[in-house]
Amino acid sequence: MAHINDNFQKLPGSYLFTEIGRRVNAYSAAHPEKSIIRLGIGDVTLPLPKSVIEAMHKAVDEMAVKETFRGYGPEQGYAFLREAIAENDYKARGANIEPDEIFVSDGAKSDCSNIGDIFGIDNKVAVCDPVYPVYVDSNAMAGRAGDYVAELGRWSNLIYMPCTSDNGFVPELPAAKNEMGERIAPDMIYLCYPNNPMGMGITREELKKWVDYAIENESVILYDAAYEAYITEDLPHTIYEVAGAEKCAIEFRSFSKNAGFTGTRCGFAVVPKALKVRNGAGELVSLNGLWSRRQSTKMNGVPYIVQRGAEAVYSEEGKKETKALVDYYLENAGIIRQGLVEAGYTVYGGVNAPYVWLKVPEGMTSWEFFDMLLDKAGVVGTPGSGFGPCGEGYFRLTGFGSRENTVKAIERIKALNA
Amino acid sequence: MAHINDNFQKLPGSYLFTEIGRRVNAYSAAHPEKSIIRLGIGDVTLPLPKSVIEAMHKAVDEMAVKETFRGYGPEQGYAFLREAIAENDYKARGANIEPDEIFVSDGAKSDCSNIGDIFGIDNKVAVCDPVYPVYVDSNAMAGRAGDYVAELGRWSNLIYMPCTSDNGFVPELPAAKNEMGERIAPDMIYLCYPNNPMGMGITREELKKWVDYAIENESVILYDAAYEAYITEDLPHTIYEVAGAEKCAIEFRSFSKNAGFTGTRCGFAVVPKALKVRNGAGELVSLNGLWSRRQSTKMNGVPYIVQRGAEAVYSEEGKKETKALVDYYLENAGIIRQGLVEAGYTVYGGVNAPYVWLKVPEGMTSWEFFDMLLDKAGVVGTPGSGFGPCGEGYFRLTGFGSRENTVKAIERIKALNA
Repeated sequence: MAHINDNFQKLPGSYLFTEIGRRVNAYSAAHPEKSIIRLGIGDVTLPLPKSVIEAMHKAVDEMAVKETFRGYGPEQGYAFLREAIAENDYKARGANIEPDEIFVSDGAKSDCSNIGDIFGIDNKVAVCDPVYPVYVDSNAMAGRAGDYVAELGRWSNLIYMPCTSDNGFVPELPAAKNEMGERIAPDMIYLCYPNNPMGMGITREELKKWVDYAIENESVILYDAAYEAYITEDLPHTIYEVAGAEKCAIEFRSFSKNAGFTGTRCGFAVVPKALKVRNGAGELVSLNGLWSRRQSTKMNGVPYIVQRGAEAVYSEEGKKETKALVDYYLENAGIIRQGLVEAGYTVYGGVNAPYVWLKVPEGMTSWEFFDMLLDKAGVVGTPGSGFGPCGEGYFRLTGFGSRENTVKAIERIKALNA
Repeated sequence: MAHINDNFQKLPGSYLFTEIGRRVNAYSAAHPEKSIIRLGIGDVTLPLPKSVIEAMHKAVDEMAVKETFRGYGPEQGYAFLREAIAENDYKARGANIEPDEIFVSDGAKSDCSNIGDIFGIDNKVAVCDPVYPVYVDSNAMAGRAGDYVAELGRWSNLIYMPCTSDNGFVPELPAAKNEMGERIAPDMIYLCYPNNPMGMGITREELKKWVDYAIENESVILYDAAYEAYITEDLPHTIYEVAGAEKCAIEFRSFSKNAGFTGTRCGFAVVPKALKVRNGAGELVSLNGLWSRRQSTKMNGVPYIVQRGAEAVYSEEGKKETKALVDYYLENAGIIRQGLVEAGYTVYGGVNAPYVWLKVPEGMTSWEFFDMLLDKAGVVGTPGSGFGPCGEGYFRLTGFGSRENTVKAIERIKALNA
């Protein structure tokens, strides 16, 4: 008698963006005359860079001719792309990452949820609060999260690391030992910088503390750097800029937010060969080989056409065009940030990330602010509490809209307080 | 202290196609003058159909313009593709499958290994022997296979269903009860028809027995129909042609082998809403919702460009072009089949599938035949024992090569016996 994975039924029913969609649709139906501006979901709006388009047309043409047609590619990605990534994203930043430590995938979302496959089920997981829900939900499905406690909005078996304005949105290191001197450090630590939803960065010095902690406690840091292209200040673009990270960290990257690949699907994971983790017998095992085996067994690589498109991101033209995309969204974030400050809000983020994180007015919840903003300004954002209990009282707006809509949304928000 | 998923280290070291590559490379290095023809791996060689190429160029152009650019798509696939699939692959064959029961993916390999996520770890799994290794390895990684017993070439906790010439390569139904009357029927049953590696089909009557068995025992059939386009006789193209299958079966399909998408990556899973499985409390739960949640959480859909390419497979031109591809490979399979018969071999398959399954000469193992064929004829095939112990004494050749190479390979094989 077959039976389901019972962990699925522990997941809370309504997914954040589904609930937002429901409320927006209900509002639109009741007020068909109102124009609504969506600055909620982190999806890009500008077209793909010209060099990417040209590369994909060329690749499509190759697929039309027997002599240049490509069948199954290497599951880990074509050498041309892995080499371009190693060179441009790592060696150029002083990080010694080799092409065979890079695994091309259909995106960071897949990688940061599939990565759990190579870890034992009883690893203890730590996540930031607020946090990108995929880290939590994928571990809940795998059975690492325990039970969902609705009153707390938290899972019984996860370690939550609060990120608040008090700690500059970089959490304290979790306790490594309890009062009896027993090791209680988390085994898998998800970090995302510049972070989502708060849009704040981390310095090399702060990140070094995490690397040292992970090495000391034999933890693995799962580092999501999907927004690194948005860094404008002197912050690390990859965790491997920090000495020792190659021994304790896996990094996830994406072409979604720099080159507009949200609908084109390409990203990659970096699993250094120096990163070793214990097996049941206490021996150290290289995760690079395990991830390679996982990918070879459970997928067949990313479309050749898409990999050629991603390669073009690293061409001279591609770099210029990608920077122009990022600058556009960053300028939007700056407009949001500036407008909110002028309207009297306390704001974070938006300088090294496309996200602006604002404090909702005293006495309101995140969802109350959502409803108010939708009703009075026709602007859709994301309630901070949807990312975790510590997001309560905050609200996320994104720079991914059009310039025109961004300016209009901010004018409407400012008019609320006028 | 982080620790790995120990199941990974139970996997036997050398993957079949890696070992084949190693032997071919060693032989080539020692005999650089020999021309080698590869009829081993199941990869296509003809270019993509013209209608697919045109559709993808058009989609690339859409991604270049703000007004038609696509960001995140629905994780389950665009409606245009799901509707085309439902209409052409199901309704046209009398199978009442709705678009929201179809989940577009990057291929059948991903789906048939990821599907395990929604089932509990202690479901009992049955596989055919010989079998496509992905079903076995993905369940081994998840912990459902027990331990690998090298002497037997089998996993301790899997139920193996021998497929031999004696049973026409359709296995007996597994025992549903033991001598004490306890239920011992498998919970998850992988079937693939037309099958790989044997290249044999299944009739509606035979398939009906499996559907009835699954309903009777509350088993779920995981039905891999990746080769359905190769059916030339009166056999079911989908399991949903059999009454009741929508209550007990998930089907996996692919554009790889009909439209040449092995390097373009698109497939789909069908999870009918009527398919319900017990949770820990004994209640029936629809798998459609679980799979939808799994896909939404752990991936972000298939590239828009690729989905437009797949949609074109269902256009009038696309259907003609796809049929021409399939016919070409089937003719190759026919040439292999006919040539082997003339050379005195006993052969199976090649009529409803691109694979020909031959009995190696008495007294030889599959690997001995591999080495002999490589050395004497310069032809590379796949040893049957690589697909499981019941494949010992058999050998697989595929129709996916070029016509010229296929003809040449068969001439060389015939010359061996001359």
